Amino acid sequence: MRSTTRHFRRYYNPSVGDAIRMDTNTNVLGSNPAAAKFLSSAEMNMNDYPNTYSDGLRDALAELYGLERENFVVGAGSDETLDIAFKTFTEWGDNAVVPVPSYSLYDYFVSMNGGKVYTADLTDDYQLDVDAVLKPSAKIMIMPSPNNPTGNAFRQKDIEEILERADGPVIVDEAYGEYSGASMIKRVNEFDNLIVMRTFSKAYAMAGLRVGYAVANLNVADMMNCVKIPYSLNMLSEGAAIAAVKDQEFIRRSVDLVDRNRGPLSDGLRRLGFTPFPSDANFILARSPIDHAVLTEGLRKKGVLIRDFGSKRRTENCVRTTIGSEELNKILLERTEEVISENQ
Amino acid sequence: MRSTTRHFRRYYNPSVGDAIRMDTNTNVLGSNPAAAKFLSSAEMNMNDYPNTYSDGLRDALAELYGLERENFVVGAGSDETLDIAFKTFTEWGDNAVVPVPSYSLYDYFVSMNGGKVYTADLTDDYQLDVDAVLKPSAKIMIMPSPNNPTGNAFRQKDIEEILERADGPVIVDEAYGEYSGASMIKRVNEFDNLIVMRTFSKAYAMAGLRVGYAVANLNVADMMNCVKIPYSLNMLSEGAAIAAVKDQEFIRRSVDLVDRNRGPLSDGLRRLGFTPFPSDANFILARSPIDHAVLTEGLRKKGVLIRDFGSKRRTENCVRTTIGSEELNKILLERTEEVISENQ
Repeated sequence: MRSTTRHFRRYYNPSVGDAIRMDTNTNVLGSNPAAAKFLSSAEMNMNDYPNTYSDGLRDALAELYGLERENFVVGAGSDETLDIAFKTFTEWGDNAVVPVPSYSLYDYFVSMNGGKVYTADLTDDYQLDVDAVLKPSAKIMIMPSPNNPTGNAFRQKDIEEILERADGPVIVDEAYGEYSGASMIKRVNEFDNLIVMRTFSKAYAMAGLRVGYAVANLNVADMMNCVKIPYSLNMLSEGAAIAAVKDQEFIRRSVDLVDRNRGPLSDGLRRLGFTPFPSDANFILARSPIDHAVLTEGLRKKGVLIRDFGSKRRTENCVRTTIGSEELNKILLERTEEVISENQ
Repeated sequence: MRSTTRHFRRYYNPSVGDAIRMDTNTNVLGSNPAAAKFLSSAEMNMNDYPNTYSDGLRDALAELYGLERENFVVGAGSDETLDIAFKTFTEWGDNAVVPVPSYSLYDYFVSMNGGKVYTADLTDDYQLDVDAVLKPSAKIMIMPSPNNPTGNAFRQKDIEEILERADGPVIVDEAYGEYSGASMIKRVNEFDNLIVMRTFSKAYAMAGLRVGYAVANLNVADMMNCVKIPYSLNMLSEGAAIAAVKDQEFIRRSVDLVDRNRGPLSDGLRRLGFTPFPSDANFILARSPIDHAVLTEGLRKKGVLIRDFGSKRRTENCVRTTIGSEELNKILLERTEEVISENQ
């Protein structure tokens, strides 16, 4: 087995049953309606190969952002486009800087591609420490904004300073970018080392279809398209994603719902003794008033899944929950209150 | 850009229009009917993530072959499972042995993963030269059987000897395995270094849905699943593939059609002056009586696409065509005759 992957174990794969899932930060409005409509009426010859580079979806994205088709690289989930970035721009043994805390799969992509992870701690308020990020003189950097699992977006001026001072590519993973409003996508032609990642798994409510994309200047995107596995995105997911891009009304409704419920959920958690952190995403990280594992397991037994980050450095005793609808948040808070009272 | 990928260019991506496609070796019966039926009635929540390791499809495959779920690794096309094999078992700079002539994308996967390709020429009749394959003492080997673009299956005893004498994993890519009948799948528990690849893009008539899988012993398959990107296969393609696996009648019909038409197409080509090579797949490689590029371009102008291998070593002046239905083969032969007579 490749020396850098020997420590790999299988990924988070809970048995779910009928549980309410507040652990994956998908869209609580349910399936994307435009994508569902497309799929219910799709007539395509599945016997043919899809378009090699998903030109139809890249055209729809170019129109949405006022960019060109060739600014985009499409993949089966943003996980694939992340892998492509490492395959395109790193050599064996190259350093990659990853902030702590952030998304757990970054380590996996770096190691899988033979790289070494250098961690750079975020500041106490979970913002970028620009000097710490630049110190290891890494070949590549990756940071989510809004950050996962902390929920906050990073300051634009910090991201810009990193882009200006970094030697190599800087990946800004905007998996939750629709929720924060702030985005680096329209600035890809301004920085020759900026790669923005986006997904259809969160605000677009299409996690089951596995669609993601990278946005970069024409030169960087072309290199990535040459390295990408041809036609990796299937034709049904591509067609559904095109329909979804053209229905921005659903995205606005989804973002509005989160904006409306973020404050009340945060307040509710605070009333139960949690310390919730500021969020620009559709989830909230909060420090638990009781033991994190007891809380998570207690909620699981009551049919609600949240994600436990309490054993990790910098998120000690913290859990992460999706921001639900009024109804879902009410259930979450009621059952949380029960678990706390049963374990005090 | 990664040093081993700098020579990468974009993949074969012809503009097609209404042309008859005899260039991709997909199933001439059209879309898989069981998969189409599943998709037309599928009710699934696309907002949820798919099963992390595609357990439903792995169970269906296990039943088909009399193996266990954990003998299987599923991906978005066998291209993904090929990439996983290299990511799991090779280090930077490792040698990989690839036969010549064979599938052009193997070089790409080896280079993308930082490896070096060692080529081993096939014998004059396009069979494995066992000593030549074993000579470079490579870390990993890959061979398609039936071979692409030559069409013939390799001898089982040669594959067995290679498995016994090789130090590292041996990948047998059975993309066209349904057509040849011969397969190494049921022998994965017998060899600790055997990895068989299969695809739903050919006999299963589902190229547009991107589904492929690897079969290996439990230990090898587990390592690959740990390295694979979680839930890379979308839920629609997985559901469609499960339905297709359970409808083996369509596969039998597809194979029968090819068996019935292989001889007549080969004879027809021979009558036009071609030298067709023996095929165990759904395509035929043949040496052209006129210049390969003139032939391919002439057919393209008449609305028929075939694949040109005439500029490559060992397939000089050869072209490859899918074996069509009676009707398609008639069109192909008629237009080929026209092109030849116009260019003599």
